[in-house]
Amino acid sequence: MEQLSEILLEIHPFVTVIHLREKQKSARELYHAVNLLTKMKVPLSKIMINDRVDVALVTGVAGVQLAYHSLEVSIVKQKFPDLKLGCSIHSYEEGQQAVLNGADYVLYGHVFPSKSKPDLTPRGLEELKKLTRQATSVIAIGGITAANTQQVINAGAKGIAVMSGILEARDPLMAVKAYQNVLENGDV
Amino acid sequence: MEQLSEILLEIHPFVTVIHLREKQKSARELYHAVNLLTKMKVPLSKIMINDRVDVALVTGVAGVQLAYHSLEVSIVKQKFPDLKLGCSIHSYEEGQQAVLNGADYVLYGHVFPSKSKPDLTPRGLEELKKLTRQATSVIAIGGITAANTQQVINAGAKGIAVMSGILEARDPLMAVKAYQNVLENGDV
Repeated sequence: MEQLSEILLEIHPFVTVIHLREKQKSARELYHAVNLLTKMKVPLSKIMINDRVDVALVTGVAGVQLAYHSLEVSIVKQKFPDLKLGCSIHSYEEGQQAVLNGADYVLYGHVFPSKSKPDLTPRGLEELKKLTRQATSVIAIGGITAANTQQVINAGAKGIAVMSGILEARDPLMAVKAYQNVLENGDV
Repeated sequence: MEQLSEILLEIHPFVTVIHLREKQKSARELYHAVNLLTKMKVPLSKIMINDRVDVALVTGVAGVQLAYHSLEVSIVKQKFPDLKLGCSIHSYEEGQQAVLNGADYVLYGHVFPSKSKPDLTPRGLEELKKLTRQATSVIAIGGITAANTQQVINAGAKGIAVMSGILEARDPLMAVKAYQNVLENGDV
């Protein structure tokens, strides 16, 4: 967490959202993680929390990223309409359903081969394209590098989510800026 | 879960609260467990959920049992004053603190030797007495049998929480009625 904190402190001005996705962390630990980010001057509006709607509500972060094991998006949306809700999806069909159920965006992947999913075939750009024709807010995840970011954007993704591409980079700040450069200026 | 369901269906009219404390269960599983209880005609007002404030809020159950890894009781109370909040505590000091922080009751234990805590020394009745002099709403847990229930009540506990004493009884309904008999009529 300490090393992660240092990286976040450095990069947060250059990203639009920070996801707290530590699935093994307890509610109390997540609460303290949000406090830590707040102390680093990360605005609450930039923070999304995985699964724990309650932690999002008491901390006042932007919203929650929901997965198959989470509360259903339609139920959360109905009860807490002000929370931004993202759904983690792995197929076109799941994506359609999530949007119908009220997801504000879908996190779709993994698009390219990813170290965190070594045994699963990546979804590739074609299904991403099919999905982005139906769902306006698709964030792509999985194996995304500065070099392939433009392909993902060309396929209709509204944004990208990156873990190892930043956190395991030798220079995380430079890595973030490389992504940002493609997103702002295209693949030049 | 199926066997548990059968037991709950039989015993729920004779208990005041059912705690869903399956710590390994996901939010979605807990949500479905509440629905299952509702189908069995267990009133929502009789159901408490461990840790997951969000599941309690969307299902409308009575409240949440909070532990050391959960959101802090003062924070939850402030944000959701209508939720009934119990705190799991293991000492007099923790109990005092929980009450100060706004817990509606404390769940204190384990009082007697318990199969679920084989390596920990039970707290015994003396500390329970000390605690009940300070905190009005103490529910005792841990190794409580129909035979020792009266001692716990005499020590000032407002109620008892039982797991194996009911769920592992040869006849769970008879076990519940034996506890109930002591609670209503004393140790006769």
